[in-house]
Amino acid sequence: MSKIKNTTSLNKIGEFGLIDHLTKNFSVVHSTTHKGIGDDAAVINFTEGQTLVSTDLLIEGIHFDLSYMPLKHLGYKSVVVNLSDVYAMNAHPTQITMSIAVSNRFTLEALEELYKGVELACKNYKVDLVGGDTSSSTTGLIISVTVMGQAEKGKISYRSGAKPNDLLLVSGDLGGAYMGLQVLEREKDVFKVNPNNQPDLALYSYCVERQLKPEARKDIIELLEEVGIIPNAMIDLSDGLSSEIFHLCKSSGVGCDVYEEKLPADPQTSSTAEEFKINTSTALLNGGEDYELLMAIKTEDYDKIKGHPLLTPIGHFTDKKEVCNMITGLGQSISLEAQGWKNFNKGQSA
Amino acid sequence: MSKIKNTTSLNKIGEFGLIDHLTKNFSVVHSTTHKGIGDDAAVINFTEGQTLVSTDLLIEGIHFDLSYMPLKHLGYKSVVVNLSDVYAMNAHPTQITMSIAVSNRFTLEALEELYKGVELACKNYKVDLVGGDTSSSTTGLIISVTVMGQAEKGKISYRSGAKPNDLLLVSGDLGGAYMGLQVLEREKDVFKVNPNNQPDLALYSYCVERQLKPEARKDIIELLEEVGIIPNAMIDLSDGLSSEIFHLCKSSGVGCDVYEEKLPADPQTSSTAEEFKINTSTALLNGGEDYELLMAIKTEDYDKIKGHPLLTPIGHFTDKKEVCNMITGLGQSISLEAQGWKNFNKGQSA
Repeated sequence: MSKIKNTTSLNKIGEFGLIDHLTKNFSVVHSTTHKGIGDDAAVINFTEGQTLVSTDLLIEGIHFDLSYMPLKHLGYKSVVVNLSDVYAMNAHPTQITMSIAVSNRFTLEALEELYKGVELACKNYKVDLVGGDTSSSTTGLIISVTVMGQAEKGKISYRSGAKPNDLLLVSGDLGGAYMGLQVLEREKDVFKVNPNNQPDLALYSYCVERQLKPEARKDIIELLEEVGIIPNAMIDLSDGLSSEIFHLCKSSGVGCDVYEEKLPADPQTSSTAEEFKINTSTALLNGGEDYELLMAIKTEDYDKIKGHPLLTPIGHFTDKKEVCNMITGLGQSISLEAQGWKNFNKGQSA
Repeated sequence: MSKIKNTTSLNKIGEFGLIDHLTKNFSVVHSTTHKGIGDDAAVINFTEGQTLVSTDLLIEGIHFDLSYMPLKHLGYKSVVVNLSDVYAMNAHPTQITMSIAVSNRFTLEALEELYKGVELACKNYKVDLVGGDTSSSTTGLIISVTVMGQAEKGKISYRSGAKPNDLLLVSGDLGGAYMGLQVLEREKDVFKVNPNNQPDLALYSYCVERQLKPEARKDIIELLEEVGIIPNAMIDLSDGLSSEIFHLCKSSGVGCDVYEEKLPADPQTSSTAEEFKINTSTALLNGGEDYELLMAIKTEDYDKIKGHPLLTPIGHFTDKKEVCNMITGLGQSISLEAQGWKNFNKGQSA
């Protein structure tokens, strides 16, 4: 956790000055944002295409652990995981609202750190913060983000459009965020025993960054536009690959064959899994929070992105309703389990 | 609190089934709602006018107390307080998202009660529930609602449009919700001493209902449309009259004179205040959660609503920047205090 030296009590700022203070450096980039923070509601001019809305709650002790999650990273991640839901519809996020509830152990400076991350995410992804709510909390930190976005009519990819023979593609690589979490949890345990121990995370930098500062796949949506592909179905990987494959298959009324050997992994993810004695395939299939995009595309579209380093074909859809199999390296077909990486810790968002 | 007899653990339902189960009876009424719950994001066709967005967090132990707040009422109130923010812009709410985080002391049946209230509010106010998130929580119940709405261009009332000489009008009556809270808190204390005591709340039914089941002023927005008034400025009363008057004056760069004798109160509010030895004017000025609308209208518009039982003129705006005075019954002018009814317990929303 970053060191917070100044400590200004939130009571000094008062309820109404807080949001103004925290967001005073934020700029508005979208022409559709007519009125942002400062009234009963924000006013947006959505007059073209279709509007997307998605929302997520992040709760201390459930979704994040401040003992190793710097507040700036947390602010960044809170925004990014929401944007990811809009990209997963093949659309572009444009505005967000962000509400926070904090207990009195948080200082103004701590919240400033949090909002620096929010600001950076807004800047990197070109979204406007247009509203929010601040409140006290009885225990920890609670963050609620709602994102709005826009898509041209006819370009949205739902979960329900996958067809038999469509190819299953995934962006980036899998399991990194999960292995990063294992590393951070281990260091936390070490710290409890020996607080003077300085962890050397250099060996795990990729995985740790995937956990602490994930990115949403804006680049993939831009790539798809560029090459002229509208996925038949798409979803983002928040709960883990197998769970999301099941969502696509269930919504689309199809089945899926996935090839174990095709699952993309960073070498560091594999070596870290080995070190932790975790089966690599288990990490790739069930590790959550990668925020990659999983999509169904028509076979005839494949040539448009064949060999692209950001997209890997990992299987294909079948007409066997909700039957999801993994074909192992030895050619065996085994039934995929629809397990998320934590029970009831991540919810369904829409 | 309503008696919950059946107890189904949330673990039995699983994360993905929960929202589907809780919202299965909800119907969609707006033609703009293209895709509701069930994908990464909802899809809405906003193609006319302007879009409003507002969001609120409600946290157990801060905003509500389940020892006297029935869950169905809480669900209803969670929606209503958000809708109120859109009405306060002279606009119509159309869609909401609702996220909840619950600890494992909540059963499925408890959440069903909560969502019955949400459903009733959606039905009464004709808004569609289009998304949300469910999560576990380490302690109590957390609710986050985001509302979207629509307004014709040029019809929105901001906080910033009040002009000197505009009349200050308030809908309904004041202080009821605050006195209801006092009654409920007293009964809670009595219950702690003598759990067999059956409270008789009949004498306080109006105030208690104002606290537990507030309504948003859809009717006032419809009335304003009917008579052809677009308020120069408007805000809803969540934090108390004086605090909201200050918001209007600050945003508009004007001052205000308010007449103590004009402040509308239900007789039960006055008699309850008397019983609790609370100065009635204090309750009317600083009691929060009335969710009435406070507006600035041009003097020439006054004839259009003169004598209307739902709207009371309580003062007028002046050119003395941010100088807010109350003229007492004895003709004295005293400075109004900008105090909300609880420090940092209610946040700023936009």
